[in-house]
Amino acid sequence: MSDLPSFVHIQEVGPRDGLQIEPKFVETADKIRMIEALADAGCREIEAGSFVNPRAVPQMADGDAVFAGIRRREGVAYRALWLNAKGLERAIANGHVDVNGKLTLTASETFVRRNTNRSIDDTLAQMPEWIAQYRANGIAVRTLGLMAAFGCNFEGYIPEAKVLDLIARAEEVMAENGCTLKTVSLADTMGWASPLQVKRLVGAVRDRWPEMRIKLHLHDTRGQAIANAVAAMELGVAYFDSSVGGLGGCPFAGHKGAAGNVSTEDLVFSCHEMGIDTGIDLDALVEVARMAEGLVGHELPGKVMKGGTLTRYKQAAPH
Amino acid sequence: MSDLPSFVHIQEVGPRDGLQIEPKFVETADKIRMIEALADAGCREIEAGSFVNPRAVPQMADGDAVFAGIRRREGVAYRALWLNAKGLERAIANGHVDVNGKLTLTASETFVRRNTNRSIDDTLAQMPEWIAQYRANGIAVRTLGLMAAFGCNFEGYIPEAKVLDLIARAEEVMAENGCTLKTVSLADTMGWASPLQVKRLVGAVRDRWPEMRIKLHLHDTRGQAIANAVAAMELGVAYFDSSVGGLGGCPFAGHKGAAGNVSTEDLVFSCHEMGIDTGIDLDALVEVARMAEGLVGHELPGKVMKGGTLTRYKQAAPH
Repeated sequence: MSDLPSFVHIQEVGPRDGLQIEPKFVETADKIRMIEALADAGCREIEAGSFVNPRAVPQMADGDAVFAGIRRREGVAYRALWLNAKGLERAIANGHVDVNGKLTLTASETFVRRNTNRSIDDTLAQMPEWIAQYRANGIAVRTLGLMAAFGCNFEGYIPEAKVLDLIARAEEVMAENGCTLKTVSLADTMGWASPLQVKRLVGAVRDRWPEMRIKLHLHDTRGQAIANAVAAMELGVAYFDSSVGGLGGCPFAGHKGAAGNVSTEDLVFSCHEMGIDTGIDLDALVEVARMAEGLVGHELPGKVMKGGTLTRYKQAAPH
Repeated sequence: MSDLPSFVHIQEVGPRDGLQIEPKFVETADKIRMIEALADAGCREIEAGSFVNPRAVPQMADGDAVFAGIRRREGVAYRALWLNAKGLERAIANGHVDVNGKLTLTASETFVRRNTNRSIDDTLAQMPEWIAQYRANGIAVRTLGLMAAFGCNFEGYIPEAKVLDLIARAEEVMAENGCTLKTVSLADTMGWASPLQVKRLVGAVRDRWPEMRIKLHLHDTRGQAIANAVAAMELGVAYFDSSVGGLGGCPFAGHKGAAGNVSTEDLVFSCHEMGIDTGIDLDALVEVARMAEGLVGHELPGKVMKGGTLTRYKQAAPH
C-alpha cells in the first residue's frame, strides 16, 4: 500500500447531492445549520446547493437564500451545481458561490441522451460555449467530470478505452479553447464499480496522464464504495466526493432504500485508521450525520454513525 | 492485485451467528427453510445452529430440531457452534452436524475474562482436553479461531506480535497433543480492522506460516468489512465467514442498529465483479436475504439486496 496518500481531500456533497433526492423539504435555516456544522467539523469543500430548475428539484429551490445565509468560514470552498448557462449565471450572480470551472461528460451514450436529450458529441460540441461563459466571468476551466465512468444500467460496463478516449477528446477541446485539463473526476453514477475495475481504470488514466489529478465520486449502491475508495487510495488517489451519513439515495437502484453516495464519516474513518489525514474531526462529523438523519426524518445508511467511532475506546485503552 | 484467488469459499453464518442476536424467535421450520434456500443458492458451508445454553440464547434452543429437520444437500457442510464439552457432546450426538475440530482463543485478555471468566492462559491450558474430546469422537483438530484479533473495545488495537505469539502458542499445544494447525481464522469481533491493518496482519501470518490457510471473520460495524475482505483477497485469502443480508447486529457497538457480520451477498457481488468464483448464485442469494428480512421482521443492512444485482442490466446491455 505504498502509494497511499498522506492526506485525502474530501468534497462533502450531502447538502446538495444528498438532499436533492429527499421528498421532505428541509428548511433553509436547517440546510444552513448543517452546512455550517460540516465546516465546523473540518470539511474544507462543501457542495452547498444548486441553481437548477426549482420545478424539477424543489428541494434545491432555495439555493440563493442558502448561499446568502451561510456564515462563511475561512478556507472553506462553498460549491454549487448548475446544469445550463442560466444556472451558472445565477450562481455567479449570487456572489457567495465558490464557482469552479468544470465541464461534464457522460460515458454512456444512452444515459446522456435520456438525461439531457443530447449525445456525447453534442456535449463535446457545447464545451467551447461553456468555456467562453466561464472565461467571461474570469474563471479558468481545469476540471472534467465524467459520469457513468464504470458502468451503466443501459449499456453495461463502460470499456476503459472509451473512458480514455473521452478524456482525450475533452482535453483537446479544452486545449483548443485555451484551457488545460488538470483534474478528472470519475463518477460511478449507477454503482457498478468494483475495486479491481477502479484499480484498472485509475491505473490506465494515471499511465496516460501521469500529472492528472484523479478524483472519484463513488456510490455505495452495492456496498463496494469504501473498498473502491481504498483501491483508488492504494494508487495514490487523494480526492473524493462523499455525503455525510450517506445522505442521498439512488434513483437507478432496483429497490427502494438503496444507498447512493458513499458516507463521508465511513470514508474518513477508513482514512484515519490507515494513517491518512483528512482535516476532519470524525466525532464532530458523526454528530452532523445524526443531525442530517433528524432533518430528513429517516435512517441514513452510514455505518460509523451507528457503530460509533473508536475514540472513547482508544482513550480508555491501556495501549 | 495479482494474488486475488480464483475461488473464494464462504461459510454462511446467518442462521446461527446472524439469528442468535434477534429478539423475535424464528420458528424452527422457517430456520430450516432459510438453511435449505442457502444450500440451494450454492452455499457449501452453513453454520446452521448452536448447542449452547438455551436460557442464555433462547433463539438457538431448537438446535437439535433444526439439524434433524434439514433436507441435506450433498456437498454441503452443516456446521454448529458449541462453547463447552457438553455442547460438543450434544452436537456429536445429534448425528446431523458436520463437526469440525476447532479451538478458539481470544487476543484480548480483558475481553476473554469478561466473556468466559477465564484468562488466555486458562484457555490455552484447556486445549488438550478439547483435543482429547474431539479425538475420542474421531475428529481431527486443525483449526484455530482467534477472536478480537484486530482490536478490542477494552484493550484498543491488538499488536500484531501478540497475534503471532498466540497462534504460535496454540500451534505448540496442538503439536504436543498430536495435532497440526492448518487453518487460522482471524475474527474482527468488534469491528476495529482497517484494510491496511488487514494487509499487515495477514501478511505477517503468511510470512511466518506460508502454508497456513488464513480465514477472516469480518464485522461491518464501521463500514470497512468489504474493503477489509478485498484487502485480504489481494494477499490471496480465499476463506471468509459472512451472513446473508448482513443478519446479526453487534452487541459491542455504540448505537442500536449497528451492523455486525459482513453481508454474504455484498461479498459475493464483490468477488464475482472481480472475476472470483464463489459457487453461489447471487440472485438466488438475494432472495434468501429478503426471506431473512421477512423472518426477523426488520430491515437488514445488506446493500445488494436493496441496490439490486447487475444481472438484468448485463443481460440487456449491448456489450
